[in-house]
Amino acid sequence: MSNPVLVEVVRGSGIESEHRGSVAVVDAGGKALLLLGEVTRPVFPRSAVKPLQALPLVESGAADRFGLGDEELALASASHSGEPAHVAGIERMLARAGLDASALACGAHPPIDAPSAQALVRSGREPSALHNNCSGKHAGFLCVACAMGAVPAGYTDPVHPVQREVKAALEDIVGVALEDRGRAIDGCSVPTWALALHNLAHGFARFATGQGLDPDRARAAARIRSACAAKPHLVAGTGRFCTRILEHFGSRVLVKSGAEGVICGAVPDAGVGIAIKCDDGAGRAAQVTMAALLARLLALDDADRVILDPLVQPVLRNWNGIEVGVLRPGASLAQRT
Amino acid sequence: MSNPVLVEVVRGSGIESEHRGSVAVVDAGGKALLLLGEVTRPVFPRSAVKPLQALPLVESGAADRFGLGDEELALASASHSGEPAHVAGIERMLARAGLDASALACGAHPPIDAPSAQALVRSGREPSALHNNCSGKHAGFLCVACAMGAVPAGYTDPVHPVQREVKAALEDIVGVALEDRGRAIDGCSVPTWALALHNLAHGFARFATGQGLDPDRARAAARIRSACAAKPHLVAGTGRFCTRILEHFGSRVLVKSGAEGVICGAVPDAGVGIAIKCDDGAGRAAQVTMAALLARLLALDDADRVILDPLVQPVLRNWNGIEVGVLRPGASLAQRT
Repeated sequence: MSNPVLVEVVRGSGIESEHRGSVAVVDAGGKALLLLGEVTRPVFPRSAVKPLQALPLVESGAADRFGLGDEELALASASHSGEPAHVAGIERMLARAGLDASALACGAHPPIDAPSAQALVRSGREPSALHNNCSGKHAGFLCVACAMGAVPAGYTDPVHPVQREVKAALEDIVGVALEDRGRAIDGCSVPTWALALHNLAHGFARFATGQGLDPDRARAAARIRSACAAKPHLVAGTGRFCTRILEHFGSRVLVKSGAEGVICGAVPDAGVGIAIKCDDGAGRAAQVTMAALLARLLALDDADRVILDPLVQPVLRNWNGIEVGVLRPGASLAQRT
Repeated sequence: MSNPVLVEVVRGSGIESEHRGSVAVVDAGGKALLLLGEVTRPVFPRSAVKPLQALPLVESGAADRFGLGDEELALASASHSGEPAHVAGIERMLARAGLDASALACGAHPPIDAPSAQALVRSGREPSALHNNCSGKHAGFLCVACAMGAVPAGYTDPVHPVQREVKAALEDIVGVALEDRGRAIDGCSVPTWALALHNLAHGFARFATGQGLDPDRARAAARIRSACAAKPHLVAGTGRFCTRILEHFGSRVLVKSGAEGVICGAVPDAGVGIAIKCDDGAGRAAQVTMAALLARLLALDDADRVILDPLVQPVLRNWNGIEVGVLRPGASLAQRT
C-alpha cells in the first residue's frame, strides 16, 4: 500500500511530478480529525519538534536566569536562515550563559538566506556554526546545561543531562516512550527519535493548547508559542514558509518545518495539532500540504486568503520569470472538510 | 496503482524517506529489457535529452562551419556548473558564430558550482546567462540559427526554425510524434515535449548505437557521444554525477540528467538505452537508480566498482561529517539481472 498523493507538480497542462505522504490532524484528547496514509509508521521529526525541544530551556529556569525573551526563545525554536539578526541573537544567547560560538557543536554551513551567504563571501569569512540553521536550538541547549550545572561539552550526546531532559519533555508531550532503537543522528548531531505521525500531531495539539499537560509545562509551552508568534522572522527567515505564515497569522497558528519533508503545526483555537511527512522528503510538498490544511482548519477572511492562497498553489517560474507551472494539492487534500 | 520504490533513504536503522518512480531499459529494436512502473505515461524529459537536441548542431553543418570540436559539442549537451571552463567555452562558441552573451535567452542563475558562485560574488559581478546550466545548449541553438541563415532572435520559440529542427530530430530518434498538447516550457524557456519513458529509452538506444537511424544522423550522434566521453567535465562539472560517470567509463556509457528526477543514458556495447523518472522529481534518487542499473548492465571490474559503488549507495553525512545514513536502491532495483 502506498500513501496518497498530497501534492501535484504541474508543468504546462501536464502533471510532471507528484508527492505522496501522510497526514495526521489530531486534537489534544488524542482524537483524530483527519488521517491520510500511514500514520503509525515511525517518522523522524527532525527540526519540526524544535519548539518542543525548547521546553527545558524555560522549565529549567535557564530562560529566566539568563534573561531570555521572545527573540531568544524564537531562535531556540528556529531553523533560521543565518541572517545578521539570527547570528547576533545567538551570539547574545551564548554570551548570557558565559559562552561563545566555540561551544556550538552543530557544525557549520553557509546561511540559507542567499544575500546573507553572499555578504559572508564578500567579507572573506567562512561560514561558522553560528550560521547553521540549528544554532539557536544549540545555544538553547547550552543555556540549559549551564543552568543545570552540567558540563556543556558533549551536550549533543544522548546520555548528556540536556538531551535526557529534552527526551523526557518530548515523551511527555507526545505521550509515548521514545525507543532507543528508533534513534538516529540529526543533521546537527543531536539525537532524533522516530515516532508515529499520529503521536506527533497529538503532541502538537497538547503543546498548542496546554491540555493534558502539567501546568508548569503548559505555561512553558505557551511562552514558546508566544515567542514564535511575536518574532516570526527569527523562527525561519526572510521569505521562508514558516515566517510568512507566522507573520500573518501570529498566535492563531504554529508551524515548524523539518528536514526530509516533515512539517508540524497547530491551530490552537481549533484545538488541533498537525503532522505531515512527505514520503520522498520534499519540503516543497510539505509546505503546500500544510497550507492546504490550514486553509481547511482556519476561518479565513480575505486578508488571510491573500497570504495563504499563494502557499496552497505556488506558481513555478523559470529563470526568465515565465510562469511554467504550479504546485497544487492532490485530490486527497483538495476537498474541504 | 503506484510506481515501485526505486530508492530508500536510510537514517540510523530506519527508512526515513523513499522515492518511487519508473524505469525503462530498451534496446535499439524497441525491445524492453526492463520495465518498472508506469512507462507509458508522458514524462517531460527536460535536460536529459540535451545530447539529442544537439543533433541539428552537427547535422546543419554549424559545427563544422564554426569549427566546433569536442569541447563545444560537450557544452551543447551539458547542464554545466558555470565554472570558468564552461563559461569560457560558451563565450568561444558564441564568438565563432559572431555573437555574444546578449544573444542567450536562457535567463541567468548563479553557477551550480559553489566555489565558482563564490568567486563571482567576490568579483562583484552578477550571474549572467553564461552561468545558466543550459547556456551551452542555447549557444548551440544560436550556432544552428546562424548556419541556417535564420534570425537568431526568438530561437526559443517552438515555431522558430531551430526548434522545428530540434523537434524533428527528437521525433525521429524516439520514433513517435511529439504532440503539441504535451508541450510545456522548460526552465530555460525552450519547449519540452512530454513522451513515454519507453520511447525515451528507445531513443537513447538508437542514439547510442546508431541502429535504425539515417547514416548521417548516426554519424552525428556518434560525434556527440564521443565529445561527451572526451570532455566529461564540460557535460556537468566538478563532482557532479554525470561527470563522475563519464570520466571513468568514457564511451562505455552515456548519462545525462534532467530536472525533476529524470535521467537518461545508454550502454552502447549492450545496445540499450535507459530512461528513469522519479515520481517526486528527486535528482538524488534518479542518480542512485541510474548507478544501480549501470551496475547491472556493465561488466564491472574492481576499478569500475570503486567508482560506481559510492554512487549506488551514497553515504549521507551531517554538517559535522558524521555518517548519519545512506541512500540505497529499493527492492525493485536490488536484484541483479
